[in-house]
Amino acid sequence: MKTQVGIIGAGPAGLMLSHLLHLEGIESVIFENRTREEIEGTIRAGVLEQGTVDLLNVTGVGERMMREGHLHHGIELQFNGIRHRVNMHELTEGKSIMVYPQHEVIKDLVAARLEAGAEIYFSVSDVSLHDVDSDSPKIRFKHDGGEQELTCDFIAGCDGFHGPSRKMIPESIREEKQQIYPFGWLGILAETPIANPELIYSNHDRGFALISTRTPEIQRHYIQVDPNDDINNWSDDRIWTELKARVETDGWKLPDGPIIQKNIVSMRSFVCEPMQYGRLFIAGDAAHIVPPTGAKGLNLAMSDVQVLKRGIVTFYETGSQDMLSRYSEIALRRIWKAQRFSWWMTTMLHRNFNHSSFERSIQLSELEYVTSSRAALTSLSENYIGLPLEWESPKSLLV
Amino acid sequence: MKTQVGIIGAGPAGLMLSHLLHLEGIESVIFENRTREEIEGTIRAGVLEQGTVDLLNVTGVGERMMREGHLHHGIELQFNGIRHRVNMHELTEGKSIMVYPQHEVIKDLVAARLEAGAEIYFSVSDVSLHDVDSDSPKIRFKHDGGEQELTCDFIAGCDGFHGPSRKMIPESIREEKQQIYPFGWLGILAETPIANPELIYSNHDRGFALISTRTPEIQRHYIQVDPNDDINNWSDDRIWTELKARVETDGWKLPDGPIIQKNIVSMRSFVCEPMQYGRLFIAGDAAHIVPPTGAKGLNLAMSDVQVLKRGIVTFYETGSQDMLSRYSEIALRRIWKAQRFSWWMTTMLHRNFNHSSFERSIQLSELEYVTSSRAALTSLSENYIGLPLEWESPKSLLV
Repeated sequence: MKTQVGIIGAGPAGLMLSHLLHLEGIESVIFENRTREEIEGTIRAGVLEQGTVDLLNVTGVGERMMREGHLHHGIELQFNGIRHRVNMHELTEGKSIMVYPQHEVIKDLVAARLEAGAEIYFSVSDVSLHDVDSDSPKIRFKHDGGEQELTCDFIAGCDGFHGPSRKMIPESIREEKQQIYPFGWLGILAETPIANPELIYSNHDRGFALISTRTPEIQRHYIQVDPNDDINNWSDDRIWTELKARVETDGWKLPDGPIIQKNIVSMRSFVCEPMQYGRLFIAGDAAHIVPPTGAKGLNLAMSDVQVLKRGIVTFYETGSQDMLSRYSEIALRRIWKAQRFSWWMTTMLHRNFNHSSFERSIQLSELEYVTSSRAALTSLSENYIGLPLEWESPKSLLV
Repeated sequence: MKTQVGIIGAGPAGLMLSHLLHLEGIESVIFENRTREEIEGTIRAGVLEQGTVDLLNVTGVGERMMREGHLHHGIELQFNGIRHRVNMHELTEGKSIMVYPQHEVIKDLVAARLEAGAEIYFSVSDVSLHDVDSDSPKIRFKHDGGEQELTCDFIAGCDGFHGPSRKMIPESIREEKQQIYPFGWLGILAETPIANPELIYSNHDRGFALISTRTPEIQRHYIQVDPNDDINNWSDDRIWTELKARVETDGWKLPDGPIIQKNIVSMRSFVCEPMQYGRLFIAGDAAHIVPPTGAKGLNLAMSDVQVLKRGIVTFYETGSQDMLSRYSEIALRRIWKAQRFSWWMTTMLHRNFNHSSFERSIQLSELEYVTSSRAALTSLSENYIGLPLEWESPKSLLV
């Protein structure tokens, strides 16, 4: 087998890269170790930046999102029992976010790719990368019982945090930077009416809580818990009691209902530098993890592959690998800014029970300052809505 | 002896309070355990916020500052060897800072107070506070060998971090919040020409450095050192070598010259809550300490006493202590915002050698973000130039 770009992983990064390359007339093959049903059913993030919304629309895969997603013009920050609306739409000159779950984006991308005749190998196993520092790297994999090999010009490692791609960057040049947080998120899907027209991020003495939405009938909420806690310690009653204690105000009550899914995830920040080696380029969760507080995971995957696509297109158009050789450098500039924002939102909103009374007061005064300063609110908003791709920045080396 | 307001401490807080009260026709007496020469010769901070400049001018003690001080429209932030100018004047709609040393402010205030016939007792000893929870609190002190007592309506404790006033707030209601930083500042006064028209704050792998100015002939610079280091370990040569390594760029060299003073100070953040008990009100360093990175120490003293003055004036005009009873609450709102800013500037600019590679990258990406975002630069500038007094804020309870 041969193709131009071998893509490992059918998550948002891999699927969007394949889609973008297709629109440029470049052929790719995708390998995914899960089934189509699994990737289309895994509950993940749900907030799309303005730039991600634009990308889906411009490339023709945004129709269902525009119909079924929820456009939000702001969020609410709650602390000391008071809620503060952040009017992001006004603060960013008309930008918005879209609440539309990641697995719906995946469904739309899979459908578009298959409709265009793309090769997506689901349920593959034993994926391995070979000759990545040569001009013809190879991907070996098992599918339907037989071992096969794909030779390609480039490999895109979009295979998540635990995939094999990142490890192909030799340890001598690979640096992994990481922070583990003492916070976990207990997330639920519940059958209740929409609680609030916009997301509520609440800093409470008992811990962080986030009120979100999925559909008019199903809502997605989170509470900060110990990351090592067992979900079996959390009855539905206990979850609702805790959620209500952290988000309800005198005038606002949280509707409850049957909880149809619940789990606990831990939180980390992680960045791999560089994100390329030879003809291997890693993107999305394979290269970096953000804590979910900034809602940046999927959005960073989308910006990574836009940078990568431009490099690949430039190569096929001109034969030059100059742009590709700068993939890591360009992508990392935006990644680190998103890491900073995610780290900041996480530390500002969660209750760190190891903190001193000084640190707790600093946290609350940060919220007090942010919600009282137009400049600080604008800064929060421009990050939440999504910073521009780095080559659009006036400071870019690509100008 | 009797007076209306007994003031302990002839620092910026005590002197300005006495001056403000005098302008309202309210009598005060100041006690200071150092000599006039000592308080007028102690080298401290040197950056005045726009609001402090305005206050000195409006109250008639700004004339020499306007003549001899240096008006700055911005600062420079340096990291990764690149310098970024922050045009604060433009970002805050025309505000500025004044570089004019604290001891010069003190000279001007002492002169104005003495000229107006004020009683300032220098070189007092054994100052003690009595009956602060009664309607006639007393200050006892020794002066010229004899013990004396002053009875007053109110006591203002402006006696710095180590003074006796704060300790009069009973431990049962007093909470002290604190953070000690693993950073020290080695500060020098050097006989060199002005190095740069504006202050340079440099984040360097070797540690933080700050290039500042005093007069056309004498400059004030700082380098981050271990707070437990001994100044005797630092020869003039070693200081200049270290300063140059941290601030020089390809096109910019630091002029050196004889060092006429050098010392090492440690850094802490500290807040005492509440700042009042009975008829005792503490202000300035007696109530709070900021690390010097935000240049807020003297400026916070000035905002404290403006709040206190208003409470005292209201009492004498109306007999009501309502405003005075809210002194602590009102003053602390601005203090905590300044604490947050000082903590943020300190953590963003110093090299914490205990930090992980992730934390170091976050620090540099914060600088990268701040210097590339107009909103973030505006936020930094509005804090550096000085946030408004809280009762001017739209969120104030005093509206």
